[in-house]
Amino acid sequence: MKETARVEAFSDGVFAIAVTLLVLDLKVPPPEPPLLAGLLAEWPVFVAYVISFAFILIMWVNHHWMFQNIVRIDSSFLMLNGLLLLGITVVPFPTSLVASYILTADQTVATAIYSGWFVVIAIIFNILWRYASANGRLLSRQAHETGLAQAITARYRWGPAAYFAAFAIAFAWAPASLALNLALAVYYAWPRESKLQLPGARG
Amino acid sequence: MKETARVEAFSDGVFAIAVTLLVLDLKVPPPEPPLLAGLLAEWPVFVAYVISFAFILIMWVNHHWMFQNIVRIDSSFLMLNGLLLLGITVVPFPTSLVASYILTADQTVATAIYSGWFVVIAIIFNILWRYASANGRLLSRQAHETGLAQAITARYRWGPAAYFAAFAIAFAWAPASLALNLALAVYYAWPRESKLQLPGARG
Amino acid sequence: MKETARVEAFSDGVFAIAVTLLVLDLKVPPPEPPLLAGLLAEWPVFVAYVISFAFILIMWVNHHWMFQNIVRIDSSFLMLNGLLLLGITVVPFPTSLVASYILTADQTVATAIYSGWFVVIAIIFNILWRYASANGRLLSRQAHETGLAQAITARYRWGPAAYFAAFAIAFAWAPASLALNLALAVYYAWPRESKLQLPGARG
Amino acid sequence: MKETARVEAFSDGVFAIAVTLLVLDLKVPPPEPPLLAGLLAEWPVFVAYVISFAFILIMWVNHHWMFQNIVRIDSSFLMLNGLLLLGITVVPFPTSLVASYILTADQTVATAIYSGWFVVIAIIFNILWRYASANGRLLSRQAHETGLAQAITARYRWGPAAYFAAFAIAFAWAPASLALNLALAVYYAWPRESKLQLPGARG
Repeated sequence: MKETARVEAFSDGVFAIAVTLLVLDLKVPPPEPPLLAGLLAEWPVFVAYVISFAFILIMWVNHHWMFQNIVRIDSSFLMLNGLLLLGITVVPFPTSLVASYILTADQTVATAIYSGWFVVIAIIFNILWRYASANGRLLSRQAHETGLAQAITARYRWGPAAYFAAFAIAFAWAPASLALNLALAVYYAWPRESKLQLPGARG
Repeated sequence: MKETARVEAFSDGVFAIAVTLLVLDLKVPPPEPPLLAGLLAEWPVFVAYVISFAFILIMWVNHHWMFQNIVRIDSSFLMLNGLLLLGITVVPFPTSLVASYILTADQTVATAIYSGWFVVIAIIFNILWRYASANGRLLSRQAHETGLAQAITARYRWGPAAYFAAFAIAFAWAPASLALNLALAVYYAWPRESKLQLPGARG
Repeated sequence: MKETARVEAFSDGVFAIAVTLLVLDLKVPPPEPPLLAGLLAEWPVFVAYVISFAFILIMWVNHHWMFQNIVRIDSSFLMLNGLLLLGITVVPFPTSLVASYILTADQTVATAIYSGWFVVIAIIFNILWRYASANGRLLSRQAHETGLAQAITARYRWGPAAYFAAFAIAFAWAPASLALNLALAVYYAWPRESKLQLPGARG
Repeated sequence: MKETARVEAFSDGVFAIAVTLLVLDLKVPPPEPPLLAGLLAEWPVFVAYVISFAFILIMWVNHHWMFQNIVRIDSSFLMLNGLLLLGITVVPFPTSLVASYILTADQTVATAIYSGWFVVIAIIFNILWRYASANGRLLSRQAHETGLAQAITARYRWGPAAYFAAFAIAFAWAPASLALNLALAVYYAWPRESKLQLPGARG
């Protein structure tokens, strides 16, 4: 069995649970206004749900790709991966924050925390990949020698910048920040034929 | 290891968690009426529980069968599968809605949303399968050449129609819609010897 | 890969989540009485936690043993297994019931439902095993021919009877029923060298 | 397949769910004080989150290492492992306790329970390992004969003592106990090149 199998299985479990726990934020509206009106008034909850679901799913896909190039693990990698999982498990919390506060005076703080947390996760993800790929430390020979690793590094680099833009915009106008997050979710989730023939394209 | 193994494992995790989170809707009745009366008054919660449990279980069984014919994945398939998982993870929410509102004046809206969500999931499932099976894109040679894929396509086609019927009936009389959903759950869950010798019959 | 692998993985996920969700019933006591007194007053919650945790764990161990003798699955088995999983996922609910009502006048109803649910699960488990083992339908040749299957059948037979005793006693004195459930949990969880050399003893 | 595979998978599931459920304690602050002030006032919740997350992650890493040396299981091991999982699944509860009470007069009780629970888990972990490793009972030949097992035993021995120190300090000054727990989490999580060349270093 591949050396990394149990780390992948544990990580998969955490990703799957975090993404599913998001549903606990979808609350049945109180009986007072008609149900349809009550649900429509809850729209920020649904928008935040879709963004966070897509974000965690995208991170899982990237995590999956990363591990297809990794054939060894060490203690540092294990703990960096743990840090990434901590980031992922927390996501339902800023999701609740932004859903609760986007229509209030505190929308800037809530949106900045939401986007800021995505920045943190994207940075940890880059650190994790760079640790694994530096000098081919934990990579398969194939990934190291063909230039695939450098191509992936170049691609991942833009994640933190994109989420940082959403973070910065929160201070100008919070709804625009949320909209950018939604656009990023759609953009990253949109399938494309990768020019770099990522391993994910084969498997 | 099969190329699809980690996608299956992640999907299994999401299905398993979504089906188990349904229990969070089963609430201990308040102490005022006697316990037995309190529990009987909660009957819509239990009916909705059984329907949603069976629905998710049936989708998992079909997902399992689908993957026994699939030997490759690509980016588009990964994202369509992610969309299906989004549909599944949301199920506990319309389940709560229908359990809370089936005995109120808003029963039509609640039941229509509940059945409507099942229509959406059934449609995504069909898209996912058709994407994978068109021209045998992601199929094993065996599934593609023996006509098994077309047989499965024909069988899956009826799912959206059946749930759409339950959706339409909600506007006439909501309890009938719920009853149809329950009947569909029993019908689809009922084991049968498949005439098409689905791979599930072998394993 | 073993034909049953994905069914086992999905079932493991459901067992693991159900057993972990039990913790959501452990509530932080309100600030009014001192913390230690508040926690001691919550003792029924902890007793119910231990019983239900042990019950689910024991069912998982038995499920694990069962699958070591099973080498094929069919549609009926899949659905019976789904019924067992439905039983397991519901366990946190009667656990809450009994923890909330054991000190009230409704203790008999709560305890009867709690034990009664264990009876239902134990019966489903026996049906599942008998379906799989009848004429060696889904068994490995080894399990069928060596008499191991009959020995397992004989052993599992007592489960429903034992939980039925706890169910019946609930109508006489509810705390005795809870105590019997606790005793059964310890009894079944207690490791023993199996005279029948169950496969679990080897692996 | 390795005899221990399904036990590892089930344990992984429980660890992954317990670590993810911790997020349910992160509550959206009420709308009254400004959001930022409300979040800052919640700092004990975040500190407790980080400590408990790191604790469960560290236990998972150790569990992972332990199983790399184990090649057989028996009934007693299965039940000791179940006891360890019971300990892990409960962790979100004392985490809530300490987060709710660290700023109240009951801080000593809450912190003692929190650290005390870590002592209990660390002791169960040591019992589990010693049961598996005594006379090489469940170990691979390599782990038994090279002295690796004894080296691991020596290393694990300090866990209960360290958490007991945090437990004892709670009676003197509760915040110091929490700080020691945080320091222990960082210390144990900090990657190091193991002098004993633990299997984890290779895989």
